[in-house]
Amino acid sequence: MAYEFKLVHRVDFYETDRAGIVHFSNYFRFMEMAESEFFRSLGLSIAIRAEGPQVGWPRVHASCDYHLPLQFEDEVEVHLLVAEKKSKALTYLFKVRKLNAPLPLEVARGRITVVCVTKAPGGPMRSTHIPKEIAERIEVAPAELLA
Amino acid sequence: MAYEFKLVHRVDFYETDRAGIVHFSNYFRFMEMAESEFFRSLGLSIAIRAEGPQVGWPRVHASCDYHLPLQFEDEVEVHLLVAEKKSKALTYLFKVRKLNAPLPLEVARGRITVVCVTKAPGGPMRSTHIPKEIAERIEVAPAELLA
Amino acid sequence: MAYEFKLVHRVDFYETDRAGIVHFSNYFRFMEMAESEFFRSLGLSIAIRAEGPQVGWPRVHASCDYHLPLQFEDEVEVHLLVAEKKSKALTYLFKVRKLNAPLPLEVARGRITVVCVTKAPGGPMRSTHIPKEIAERIEVAPAELLA
Amino acid sequence: MAYEFKLVHRVDFYETDRAGIVHFSNYFRFMEMAESEFFRSLGLSIAIRAEGPQVGWPRVHASCDYHLPLQFEDEVEVHLLVAEKKSKALTYLFKVRKLNAPLPLEVARGRITVVCVTKAPGGPMRSTHIPKEIAERIEVAPAELLA
Repeated sequence: MAYEFKLVHRVDFYETDRAGIVHFSNYFRFMEMAESEFFRSLGLSIAIRAEGPQVGWPRVHASCDYHLPLQFEDEVEVHLLVAEKKSKALTYLFKVRKLNAPLPLEVARGRITVVCVTKAPGGPMRSTHIPKEIAERIEVAPAELLA
Repeated sequence: MAYEFKLVHRVDFYETDRAGIVHFSNYFRFMEMAESEFFRSLGLSIAIRAEGPQVGWPRVHASCDYHLPLQFEDEVEVHLLVAEKKSKALTYLFKVRKLNAPLPLEVARGRITVVCVTKAPGGPMRSTHIPKEIAERIEVAPAELLA
Repeated sequence: MAYEFKLVHRVDFYETDRAGIVHFSNYFRFMEMAESEFFRSLGLSIAIRAEGPQVGWPRVHASCDYHLPLQFEDEVEVHLLVAEKKSKALTYLFKVRKLNAPLPLEVARGRITVVCVTKAPGGPMRSTHIPKEIAERIEVAPAELLA
Repeated sequence: MAYEFKLVHRVDFYETDRAGIVHFSNYFRFMEMAESEFFRSLGLSIAIRAEGPQVGWPRVHASCDYHLPLQFEDEVEVHLLVAEKKSKALTYLFKVRKLNAPLPLEVARGRITVVCVTKAPGGPMRSTHIPKEIAERIEVAPAELLA
């Protein structure tokens, strides 16, 4: 059972904008990158793949509070924590820290809720119970980490 | 005094992902596109430009709730409404509608809070009062539109 | 029969980078946007859709020469011209012009070659002849326009 | 003196498009990511930073030939090779390989030419000689590697 993952990413040039800082939309990509690696660390994939459980994870909510800007070549830690686990949905908390600072510095905090869905080719997505092989590997993080 | 703007955008191929739908991060770009055009419609710019007020608008909060997916070539209306106006900050509500539907259909709803800042070259950003020439052109939308 | 399309696009904030100009990778997105609209103008789509010909158009070549930078809020014309038409492939020339200049100014020139493919679900892409209903609507531009 | 760099990158979800493969524009971002790390490996930065040489590197040419598609979670090696070195410009060759294959497989090959420029705040970019501290660390790759 796992409840967290830490991704380290160095800010790429194309992730910045004319204000000289990381464009705010890219934080959501950072969060998804951490989610992908969290699943990979469990032998899973967030994508529907031929060989795995036939479920996808569309987002129903995403939010981010920005405290301090990030710049090109900053080293960023995206700390994913499982905040909620329901029968058909997961909510992640993300603490985004800048590592190239005197002390690791929280620069943003985000939250994403994903719903487990199946999808027949050409058909609509339908919410479904999280498959047992996935649910049994993921648990909610201790309350003190979610503060 | 203005409190709203409606941007129409057709979904581009590169805005979709392997799930066949618009990537969730792009909704935040749609919102910013509407904000840019809202400012333009008032003779203003969200960017610091040589000829205008020397203020920028970094985001301190962004969120989105996703109701239904969007696909390539869908026609999207991004309806910006000014939800809050403070001395140094603005909050926008965004209603994202799919127009190529029997009736305009709300597919997502977002919210962005921006703070007015000045920035000396090479220096940090500092929050500042919204310049009068901007503040006097923007007002909060009627409550019934914000529901 | 059509051989050209002109797309007008205003540069979005997120398309710029920390150098204050449009990131070079985005010119390829501008070109694809023009290609999408060119197909749409002919009642076609560059995407495989349930209701149309079951072919896709992966790129086998893309290039761009950059003459002058583009900035936030610049108004850009992307002029697509059909440069080559083969039985299974099309090559487009793109002249990228800045419109908010004393005279329209060519700021970049690109080229994309796409191949017509079919794809069974889960299978690989295979090149195929351009369907007649598409081929009969597209022709090569006059030589003087391709100079 | 260095003439190459190999970057390894795992394909992110947001880098794919509705065709299920990496969007062609993202290969140019992969190339730039390798270029950034190449400079970093030499103690340099491709960006104008307060503490380093005051030069930037706008692109004047970028091209890519695509042989095989890349998919989500593919492990990609971007092999940068210095192909040309002039007094004011550098040209890189990029061999893009898929590593999660029976043998490393070249899936694309690209080329980027950058020009060394200075830029006064608010002024235009002007081409300039590559500063000695940069030029003396970079050399052209052996011909056999450029084939």
